[in-house]
Amino acid sequence: MKLEFEILAGDGKARCGRLKTARGTVSTPAFMPVGTLGTVKAMSPRELVEIGVQMLLSNTYHLYLRPGLEVLERHGGLHAMMGWKGPILTDSGGYQAYSLKPLPRITEEGVLFASHLDGSRHLFTPRKVVEIQAVIGSDIMMPIDDCPALPCSQERLIQAIERSTAWALESLEASRQVPGALFAIVQGGTSQTHRRRHLEALLPHPFEGFAVGGLAVGEQIEAMYDTVDFVGELLPADRVRYLMGVGTPENLLACIERGMDLFDCVLPTRNGRNGQLFTRRGVINLKNSRFREATDPIDPHCGCYTCRNFSLSYLRHLIVSREILGARLATTHNLAYYQDLMKEAREAIANDRFRQFASACREGWLAGIPVA
Amino acid sequence: MKLEFEILAGDGKARCGRLKTARGTVSTPAFMPVGTLGTVKAMSPRELVEIGVQMLLSNTYHLYLRPGLEVLERHGGLHAMMGWKGPILTDSGGYQAYSLKPLPRITEEGVLFASHLDGSRHLFTPRKVVEIQAVIGSDIMMPIDDCPALPCSQERLIQAIERSTAWALESLEASRQVPGALFAIVQGGTSQTHRRRHLEALLPHPFEGFAVGGLAVGEQIEAMYDTVDFVGELLPADRVRYLMGVGTPENLLACIERGMDLFDCVLPTRNGRNGQLFTRRGVINLKNSRFREATDPIDPHCGCYTCRNFSLSYLRHLIVSREILGARLATTHNLAYYQDLMKEAREAIANDRFRQFASACREGWLAGIPVA
Repeated sequence: MKLEFEILAGDGKARCGRLKTARGTVSTPAFMPVGTLGTVKAMSPRELVEIGVQMLLSNTYHLYLRPGLEVLERHGGLHAMMGWKGPILTDSGGYQAYSLKPLPRITEEGVLFASHLDGSRHLFTPRKVVEIQAVIGSDIMMPIDDCPALPCSQERLIQAIERSTAWALESLEASRQVPGALFAIVQGGTSQTHRRRHLEALLPHPFEGFAVGGLAVGEQIEAMYDTVDFVGELLPADRVRYLMGVGTPENLLACIERGMDLFDCVLPTRNGRNGQLFTRRGVINLKNSRFREATDPIDPHCGCYTCRNFSLSYLRHLIVSREILGARLATTHNLAYYQDLMKEAREAIANDRFRQFASACREGWLAGIPVA
Repeated sequence: MKLEFEILAGDGKARCGRLKTARGTVSTPAFMPVGTLGTVKAMSPRELVEIGVQMLLSNTYHLYLRPGLEVLERHGGLHAMMGWKGPILTDSGGYQAYSLKPLPRITEEGVLFASHLDGSRHLFTPRKVVEIQAVIGSDIMMPIDDCPALPCSQERLIQAIERSTAWALESLEASRQVPGALFAIVQGGTSQTHRRRHLEALLPHPFEGFAVGGLAVGEQIEAMYDTVDFVGELLPADRVRYLMGVGTPENLLACIERGMDLFDCVLPTRNGRNGQLFTRRGVINLKNSRFREATDPIDPHCGCYTCRNFSLSYLRHLIVSREILGARLATTHNLAYYQDLMKEAREAIANDRFRQFASACREGWLAGIPVA
């Protein structure tokens, strides 16, 4: 195996582990900030290191189109290009291709899509997607899969699962020639039947980890939690589990409790740029006029650069005035909060008090931020 | 006097000096980055310290409207609010008020203008402008002045100069009650008669320094240099000289050579955000496709964070993709380049080789950046 994954402690279904990659070790549960185009929006790599980020997510589809493979090759890969020394996980681009208009054409061979930038046509086959991720220098690669737009017929769902399985196996074969480790993606929406069917097809093969895909796409939150719970029960304990595209701090705690190890989401970065902050005292919007003269930091107990140096009032002024520094400082705090939450979750699991920790977090979120 | 200014060395008319303020010492010639709304766009204060910025410029008119005086007062001034410990110079807001539509109404009392944000009406009298700058906590204040839109009649020009003189004296009186030092602004366009008339009216009074205003507003570059030369000859040697709103690296060297000490300009920040870089090898635009695969840094001899860590190609990718990090890294380099240029200019003056230094700079700018 290209990765080493070790479970250090467990509390109920929650796990605390150590994922060793060629580019460094990740303590799990871990949250990966999203760096779609080879930059975590508004952040510099040294700032990511400063707040304790261990691993980034980047995007095969977007990097393939811009800056393109020649540019990535000239740099010797994404790590050197963007100045990030730690591990990078890349998604396969399948999800992005499927959200394009016009929809891509799917054949047994792969996904044929038109670039959202210039309309040029590109065929992503399972092998090609692995090769692109090798050019990127991805430490953890995702296979391309067939994820039909929902709702769709049972027939189409079953076809998608069978095709995704075949593609995952082709990707696994291709991955033997490249340094990166390959995960499988388990699809099947909120249907236990489909999830089980897909997982059972994937399980016998030496994927280095399992991603749970197709959630956080608009379904009811309880349906998402039930699915995570169900899939978590079926996954092998000794391999790392990545819940794709999730989520809020509440979602993270709920899914850590259900046995997930890795997460990624645009919420802390995207919402930060719009002035929405995640805090120990819940979610706040800086545009709210009650922060106009609030000279306290977001959170006096937070050690991030933003909280150590700036007031809510100043942050509000920057966001209202659309200053770049406002987007930067809000993103910094949000990512630091997510990293701190994961760190505290790991400690709680190690000390067999994850449930108490999670309910203390929930109480804090309800308390709200006091403004003098 | 509230400031101490000492000339350490001279080379021709060029001067190298030390300006002591209550918040730290500034080596001159010095360039002040512009922080209109209480932030140098795209930069954090610790990054400004890292690249050697000594003093910032901020904007009385803009800060008065947003975040407003109550918010500044709640923080104990701009320094605490924005996390900048060094000196801050504030312009008076006259220039901004005059660029508004509809034009402000000017009476003997002051300038009555409508906010560009909400149309609310505000009267800026000389005393009020000093008081606003005291709330900001400005280390160096500018008096409001009457700067008519050009072209205008001789009569109107003379009225403006007389009114500006009267207002400067009122401001000087008001400044005795506040900690900040007050400069006078010498107006008069490119007319030697008017410049001399204004300067002679101001010279007998204990202003802490002299600003040369009304240049870099569209006049021919030779007319600007001639005016700077002329005014420089008439200014007292022992007080610091600030050339407002200038300029390009070439403008800075030309005006240092003509005896100016302080400069501010939006060029390195504004143009940086658009992908235009100032370098030892001239001005380049990152959008140019010749940088697409250029894995060299902007300048291998530059010590800024951008040049130490990132390639031209990556910077181009970020700017073309409108990523915030692109604006940040380009601004960082441009400001670092300006600071380095000033530092090298000071060293050249101290070593009696300013002319050689300036011509070596000009040769470098013509050379262009080689791309492999």
